[in-house]
Amino acid sequence: MKLHFLGTGAGLPSKQRNVTSIVLDLLQERGTCWMFDCGEGTQHQLLHSPLKLSKIDKLFVTHLHGDHIYGIPGVLSSRSFHGNPSPLTIYGPVGLRRYIDACLETSTTHLTYPIEVREVADDGLVFHDDNVTVTARWLSHGVPSLGFRIEETDRAGVFYPQRAKAKGIAPGPLFARLQAGQSVETPDGRVVVPNEVMGPPRPGRTVAILGDTRPCPEALEVARNADVLVHEATFGQAEANLARDYNHSTTIEAAEVAKMSRVHKLILTHVSARYGQEDVSNLEAEAKTVFSAAQFAYDLLTVTVLFSDEAVAETID
Amino acid sequence: MKLHFLGTGAGLPSKQRNVTSIVLDLLQERGTCWMFDCGEGTQHQLLHSPLKLSKIDKLFVTHLHGDHIYGIPGVLSSRSFHGNPSPLTIYGPVGLRRYIDACLETSTTHLTYPIEVREVADDGLVFHDDNVTVTARWLSHGVPSLGFRIEETDRAGVFYPQRAKAKGIAPGPLFARLQAGQSVETPDGRVVVPNEVMGPPRPGRTVAILGDTRPCPEALEVARNADVLVHEATFGQAEANLARDYNHSTTIEAAEVAKMSRVHKLILTHVSARYGQEDVSNLEAEAKTVFSAAQFAYDLLTVTVLFSDEAVAETID
Repeated sequence: MKLHFLGTGAGLPSKQRNVTSIVLDLLQERGTCWMFDCGEGTQHQLLHSPLKLSKIDKLFVTHLHGDHIYGIPGVLSSRSFHGNPSPLTIYGPVGLRRYIDACLETSTTHLTYPIEVREVADDGLVFHDDNVTVTARWLSHGVPSLGFRIEETDRAGVFYPQRAKAKGIAPGPLFARLQAGQSVETPDGRVVVPNEVMGPPRPGRTVAILGDTRPCPEALEVARNADVLVHEATFGQAEANLARDYNHSTTIEAAEVAKMSRVHKLILTHVSARYGQEDVSNLEAEAKTVFSAAQFAYDLLTVTVLFSDEAVAETID
Repeated sequence: MKLHFLGTGAGLPSKQRNVTSIVLDLLQERGTCWMFDCGEGTQHQLLHSPLKLSKIDKLFVTHLHGDHIYGIPGVLSSRSFHGNPSPLTIYGPVGLRRYIDACLETSTTHLTYPIEVREVADDGLVFHDDNVTVTARWLSHGVPSLGFRIEETDRAGVFYPQRAKAKGIAPGPLFARLQAGQSVETPDGRVVVPNEVMGPPRPGRTVAILGDTRPCPEALEVARNADVLVHEATFGQAEANLARDYNHSTTIEAAEVAKMSRVHKLILTHVSARYGQEDVSNLEAEAKTVFSAAQFAYDLLTVTVLFSDEAVAETID
């Protein structure tokens, strides 16, 4: 599970930063990738990344501002050029379907794969299967803006082979059955249940990707205990008045959300084009005064999402 | 008068070529620029050119395929970020207004300047003022696709100061009046009319910018005697069957249009992403077998449009 930041700027593209798009790379976990937001030029950024358009099978849209959606028609259309792509499901606020229909109809674009647009009217559960649950909450941004929480199902606990051997189980197929959560029988007829030889279930990873927002209780809820929180920081604290006027957050505000939510890592993005690279270093330092595990994203940055036990081990290293 | 090629690829962007957009730079002539087509990422390409978004006051759209229009919403919206821009007029096939409205409404984009969308229902005169006339003709491309012909008004003839002096006119304000087309009076009361001291009017420049098309009589009409013809060449002659199937032109077909139209210069563009840089050199050579003044465009190429007498002088040099 990795995050690829394709565009990390706000409002309009600059030479250094494209407008917003993030890809959650689940290739190892489920063989596909999920995109979050798709500003203009996202398909161009993909050309400079290791990602493949045909592997993206879900697009989550936080809100309908142009810098988050103007790349959708191009991505949909170019995805048709990539041999035999899978169906694509698109989630986002009401209005998304009309926009996509108008773009595809005007350009007489006939996609070679099915798309389904699921407009999110009420927040709550957005997607669920055996491995992942996605929930969303409305944030605070002037237009409806969603924060997405992506939670992996708990993994089985650690398997202790010595304990199994001590119970008279021989290494081999019986070990595998125990690890898969099934009870097994020893040669002398005793039943061994998995929790005798395994540790407690270990939590899966949680990633929170927030749309543009002011700090709000819903942001805390989406971010709670996340392994990685992606939060906008359009402005530095010196421009707190602009952040308030334009319904955005500052570095410090984002860091406070991270701290209160007890996340493991904070990635700041969606930075205003007014800040040059040196300014952004200062903004990162500013965020770190509140929350030390903060980092500013840049275009084409990749972040590996660690399990919380791995993250602890990494911290100790 | 210059042409800036912002995007020279077909269908979808590659690392080397963006999708279609061309800017006719009229900064010297009228202080503004006109854009022809606006594929996704056009505003990004502008950042790498000497052009300014705020100076573009007309956008001509040849046809509504995605690779020619998906950059419009971003251009409109980012143009609002540039202080006090002038009104913008957009010309193109019917359907353009609904598309633009849907994009701006979905994204709740409020432009800081007025736009006017003039849908072209019938071909013919598109724009006219004292200095320039733009006409358009429907080409042959499966969807309505326009070819635009941009003609400068004739310039005054060459002024011969020796002839004026011989008629008893002193250099100064009277010279200027003659050059401006007014009659003047000599000190001894004789009237001198401009054509006594000036050569015949010299033709203004003509640029023809064609949308995607098969070769057709209308293309010849738009291109007739143009100083520069911009013509698509999506395919090489070896892929003539693809060109026919997809309503495009080959290198040779474009070169034949240039030859039959007696243009001075042919710029080929909209090349399929299947061709690498070396292939494109071969395609250019192929076109030159039919029309020697042919050149393939590349992204950010600038072409100066010469007056036909300058072009002749250049050829002699």
